Amino acid sequence: MAEVKIRHAVPADVPEIVSLIRALAEYEKAAPGALSLTEELLRDSLFGPHAAVEALIAECSGQMAGYALFFHNFSSWRGKRGLFLEDIFVRPELRGRGIGKALFAELLRIARERGCSRMEWLVLDWNQTAIDFYRSLGAEPLNEWTTFRLNLG
Amino acid sequence: MAEVKIRHAVPADVPEIVSLIRALAEYEKAAPGALSLTEELLRDSLFGPHAAVEALIAECSGQMAGYALFFHNFSSWRGKRGLFLEDIFVRPELRGRGIGKALFAELLRIARERGCSRMEWLVLDWNQTAIDFYRSLGAEPLNEWTTFRLNLG
Repeated sequence: MAEVKIRHAVPADVPEIVSLIRALAEYEKAAPGALSLTEELLRDSLFGPHAAVEALIAECSGQMAGYALFFHNFSSWRGKRGLFLEDIFVRPELRGRGIGKALFAELLRIARERGCSRMEWLVLDWNQTAIDFYRSLGAEPLNEWTTFRLNLG
Repeated sequence: MAEVKIRHAVPADVPEIVSLIRALAEYEKAAPGALSLTEELLRDSLFGPHAAVEALIAECSGQMAGYALFFHNFSSWRGKRGLFLEDIFVRPELRGRGIGKALFAELLRIARERGCSRMEWLVLDWNQTAIDFYRSLGAEPLNEWTTFRLNLG
């Protein structure tokens, strides 16, 4: 089995990350038109002067096999920042090889290195494969909380 | 009725913000020991070289009547940052005077000024007063998503 290499994204990765984000949106059954992401927006968000997010790339036999996007959130109970995982995705045809686990392990390493109190992310309630994977890592659902959203156009 | 003034927090506000965070934790029935926040941690998180969060203060007759803590998150669908509201709290004895609404209005103004695609926050499912307030603002619950958390100690 080919080795998995996890590395930080570089600007040349942007087009392929965008295509993987589109694949994830399709997998998550996002509403048509929900995706207004462009390569320019992602390049600015990752590498611009007001960068808002970081990306990890999983490589397998020189191919981009998956990615993770994350940023720092903050817990007022803890008084410390945490790591919020916005996206994690592995190409469907490359699953079952430990690529998602390798991405997660690197995210956890980064979170610990930066003194984060915890790691959090959102999961679609019907995505039982993902839920089983997250539970196997020791993560727990915040069942008593619901996210509210106000779209600003 | 006394006028409500909304302003950004300054370092001298830290002790009183911490006492309001403790009041919010009690209101939200946080588990004993869940709060490891200190004044030093909050001062570093708000004003240190690696600031992770911002705070707004609501003043009413010269008294700190409430606060909001927020940071920027990121939406890969939108390719833009958003505003995540970590805490919003008004002293129970000062509710019903539009203080929460004034804090929200200022958060929305900041989010729009900074080009945010949306504003998001978590709500406890039993907090119907809060849910009614958020729905009156046009916010919608992400009912199909659950937050997962991995504590890192």
